Amino acid sequence: MADKIYRVNMTDLSTSIEDVPADWMGHGGRGLTSTIVAAEVEPTCHPLGKNNKLVIAPGLLSGTTAANSGRISFGAKSPLTGTIKEANSGGTAAQMLAKLGCKAIIIEGMPEGDGWYNLHFTADGITINEETELIGKGNFAVVDAVAARLGDKHGIISIGQAGEMKMLAANLSIKDPDSHLRSGGRGGLGAVMGTKHIKFIAIDPTEAKVEIADKDAFLAANRVFTKALVDNPISQALGQYGTNVLVNIVNEAGGLPTRNFTSGQFDGHEEISGETMYDIIVEREGKPKHNCHKGCVIQCSQIYNDINKGYKTSGFEYESIWAMGADCCVDNLDQIAEADQLMDDIGIDTIETSVAMGVAMEGGVLEFGDGAEVCRILKDEVAAGSPLGRIIGCGAGSVGRAFGVTRVPVVKNQAIPAYDPRAIKGIGITYATSTQGADHTMGYTIATNLLGVGGSLDPLSKEGQVELSRNLQIATAAIDSTGMCLFIAFAALDDATCLPALVDMLNARFGIGLTADDVTNLGMSILKTEHEFNLAAGFTNKDDRLPEFFDEEPIAPHNVVWDISGEEIDTFWNF
Amino acid sequence: MADKIYRVNMTDLSTSIEDVPADWMGHGGRGLTSTIVAAEVEPTCHPLGKNNKLVIAPGLLSGTTAANSGRISFGAKSPLTGTIKEANSGGTAAQMLAKLGCKAIIIEGMPEGDGWYNLHFTADGITINEETELIGKGNFAVVDAVAARLGDKHGIISIGQAGEMKMLAANLSIKDPDSHLRSGGRGGLGAVMGTKHIKFIAIDPTEAKVEIADKDAFLAANRVFTKALVDNPISQALGQYGTNVLVNIVNEAGGLPTRNFTSGQFDGHEEISGETMYDIIVEREGKPKHNCHKGCVIQCSQIYNDINKGYKTSGFEYESIWAMGADCCVDNLDQIAEADQLMDDIGIDTIETSVAMGVAMEGGVLEFGDGAEVCRILKDEVAAGSPLGRIIGCGAGSVGRAFGVTRVPVVKNQAIPAYDPRAIKGIGITYATSTQGADHTMGYTIATNLLGVGGSLDPLSKEGQVELSRNLQIATAAIDSTGMCLFIAFAALDDATCLPALVDMLNARFGIGLTADDVTNLGMSILKTEHEFNLAAGFTNKDDRLPEFFDEEPIAPHNVVWDISGEEIDTFWNF
Repeated sequence: MADKIYRVNMTDLSTSIEDVPADWMGHGGRGLTSTIVAAEVEPTCHPLGKNNKLVIAPGLLSGTTAANSGRISFGAKSPLTGTIKEANSGGTAAQMLAKLGCKAIIIEGMPEGDGWYNLHFTADGITINEETELIGKGNFAVVDAVAARLGDKHGIISIGQAGEMKMLAANLSIKDPDSHLRSGGRGGLGAVMGTKHIKFIAIDPTEAKVEIADKDAFLAANRVFTKALVDNPISQALGQYGTNVLVNIVNEAGGLPTRNFTSGQFDGHEEISGETMYDIIVEREGKPKHNCHKGCVIQCSQIYNDINKGYKTSGFEYESIWAMGADCCVDNLDQIAEADQLMDDIGIDTIETSVAMGVAMEGGVLEFGDGAEVCRILKDEVAAGSPLGRIIGCGAGSVGRAFGVTRVPVVKNQAIPAYDPRAIKGIGITYATSTQGADHTMGYTIATNLLGVGGSLDPLSKEGQVELSRNLQIATAAIDSTGMCLFIAFAALDDATCLPALVDMLNARFGIGLTADDVTNLGMSILKTEHEFNLAAGFTNKDDRLPEFFDEEPIAPHNVVWDISGEEIDTFWNF
Repeated sequence: MADKIYRVNMTDLSTSIEDVPADWMGHGGRGLTSTIVAAEVEPTCHPLGKNNKLVIAPGLLSGTTAANSGRISFGAKSPLTGTIKEANSGGTAAQMLAKLGCKAIIIEGMPEGDGWYNLHFTADGITINEETELIGKGNFAVVDAVAARLGDKHGIISIGQAGEMKMLAANLSIKDPDSHLRSGGRGGLGAVMGTKHIKFIAIDPTEAKVEIADKDAFLAANRVFTKALVDNPISQALGQYGTNVLVNIVNEAGGLPTRNFTSGQFDGHEEISGETMYDIIVEREGKPKHNCHKGCVIQCSQIYNDINKGYKTSGFEYESIWAMGADCCVDNLDQIAEADQLMDDIGIDTIETSVAMGVAMEGGVLEFGDGAEVCRILKDEVAAGSPLGRIIGCGAGSVGRAFGVTRVPVVKNQAIPAYDPRAIKGIGITYATSTQGADHTMGYTIATNLLGVGGSLDPLSKEGQVELSRNLQIATAAIDSTGMCLFIAFAALDDATCLPALVDMLNARFGIGLTADDVTNLGMSILKTEHEFNLAAGFTNKDDRLPEFFDEEPIAPHNVVWDISGEEIDTFWNF
């Protein structure tokens, strides 16, 4: 049976199942969400108004046995940035939706009254049900309640209090195989789901399988692909230390933004490093390796236990640890883990919210290093929707405006993550030019600037950085469409067998004949679709700039400023 | 002695006196502030950063005996809108600065430390002095303290707590001849002075006179000009009821935005009308007529006393009364006067702040109609800089973002004042296209749409509105350069002797030979300078739009929506 589009109209509370239009057929994941948003959402609409839509799409390979193919994409006009937005995540939802024949879910309109709803996705379609019990509750309460109502095998996409309150940093939470949470973190898409008054979407587990046009070819290609992943040394490091392996590496490179981006090195880096975290996890009988979706062979997630060996958090990422750690000068992993867990429960982006805390520290709202106060603010202010909680819950730009702080590390109002662009120039190009505001995952130049993957390029020189970022952004747009985790990129860049195997899997899945060039063209076309949406929304090249302070304030230890001119940045779009 | 430019560098605490460059010579007031900002401020700079500048300029005729010529202009990149900005005001500063030979003051840079300063403008130049006593105090305390230190004849330009805290709606206060306050209200220029750590500027009174090239011609022209003003029926109505004469007129026209822009008529309009206010003022022995600067023959200001016949507020304008009254559903003039006085003391724009309160009411922060709570919030939250106070003090857009409200009446993040664009289409064109965000004073089509001044044009039809707004915006830019109060426009539009007399005064003052066409060309050139600054800052025609809800929500009693398309709006710039 061909995949279908599932449309949910929250204005009249109706649902429908539609055939996939021909020109959406070759798309999945980000390519599909961006194509649908560009086709159906007016670029100048209010992102929290009834004319915005939330689009959910598994990737092209999701639901198959392809390694690491369990990513799900969410798309909308972002309330945080005003740009088009795609956020993707692991968890079980992508695979279940794909197996149930779902090409995409399009949620549109907005209920008139104050009532809240949940959606239930079954083999027969989507039902809309009133929801009262869980309103005002966090994401973990949703997971527990759905388990009690439907069993613990269901997929869940949910929002916490932040999404209900339409905070601009609200994220979407996606249940993982162990009932922990992953996040479609950035750009405030949880607020869009909040405007639709949908607390959660439950997805029936299924024994169905996605159709594979050529099963033997698929299995053969997947074998090659999987081997490339597991043999890759970066994959192996990610499996051992998680993404937090990066703290020491980025600190050593002088690109670990510290104390609200006033230094590139953090004295407390050892206390929050991946190596330290590994030791704590082992000592407390957590799990250093954990997969966020079935079929992941990298397993960068982990289970971090508290001092009593009880579960504290999982999916404890470098960028979150950096943000609460170095950027806020908190050198206590347990406090950071506590904050991480709170943010997951409230349903708010750990990067945006923690960078916002750093700006608030600069603004005198709390002291640098006061992790206990961060946790109190999250619990008592953000979750409760107090005025301070709303300022912080609307992100770093919001805090800067409210407290008159000018050192505000945002591009297109989205917080800059974990890698200082003065010391790692390539990532600065990604932050500036990304169609979605500052986002390291859009074109992860750290691979080549610091990790020697895909060649190596001096992070301190501006030479070649635009081209590096462009190539990676194009490749990323394509990878984000397959349902693959971005971490396949390390193998794809360095192992000649990896990318051809991925293309072979796509061809075997659909019975088509894509070449590597087709995949590159797909990436380019997605970027252009997204860029055109932004231009129509009123963005210009003036928005493709880093904040002024990067040009003016040299950062230690290299004492470098951001020195790539606007004209040089603008060459990014020459393709 | 030729006028000079006075430059104040707050980074190194130095001052200098410079000759006026040739191409600034023909400019004054807004024309000069916009020319200097365009020449010296990088359009993409952070408006609260050290690269923004605050420019202060009396008008071309300020300091002369020309009737109504006492306006002073303030220019900068606006922290509220991100556009170029000019705000002008009455009070005594313009005339004193002009008599002291000041063409403009340019304040640039930013002190490193936490110290605060005041500036003292004397016949010998400007001194920079440390200020401690008044930090954290309101504007009225500044007026009292300067009187105690220097005597009560000094001109004063000051900021209250809002400007110190860099709230985006902070204004500049200007002392009037009776030591009451006028405001350079819109666009947050008080926050720019706050970034420079200048609490106030005191200006020495002087017996000096501005030079007049042809005194007889000047006197003759001023006689004709003054007669045109005093004979004009609108001038007379303004003198009797103040600008608040408009409440009943705009309510009758169905264009009085009520309950956060959900209706065009307010049940309580009689309670807050100019006629009611007049009766209260007379009964309490206030002054229905009062001039904000020497030489004003219209006298639209007034002294509004409290129930015990003690002074409560002055310069109690229609737009402020509308905003706290109809828009917030407060039908109690005393509560509105209390709020007006508080906002003047805190130094925050009454329009922006009151519209922000209306959005907060819609967001559930307080109840519609609760004027007492509005006053409490102003005192306990805004003046104190609490998180809620900062959200509100950063304007209507800020409140919308924090509380997830989508009915937010702003253009370029500045609150729409007092006239609903659905029912009065011409003003909608002004709001959309103004170089400075929504601002009725930029092209006051109400004159022709409602008051029959300069002809008459059906406010409900879209025909001719772009042209009307364009002509008025061009004329306004020129008038704002002369130091004239905008209220000369009523006479200028309907009395054939008025505008030629104004041109004659300019010629007699400077010994030049301008024609009426030259004045029109000046207005056009100012608008284009401002527009180019905005384009360079990243604005596009997509920013020249009203919020989505005006297109979608019909307003009573006419049940009309905003129906002028983007393409039609964009023809505004065809000149």
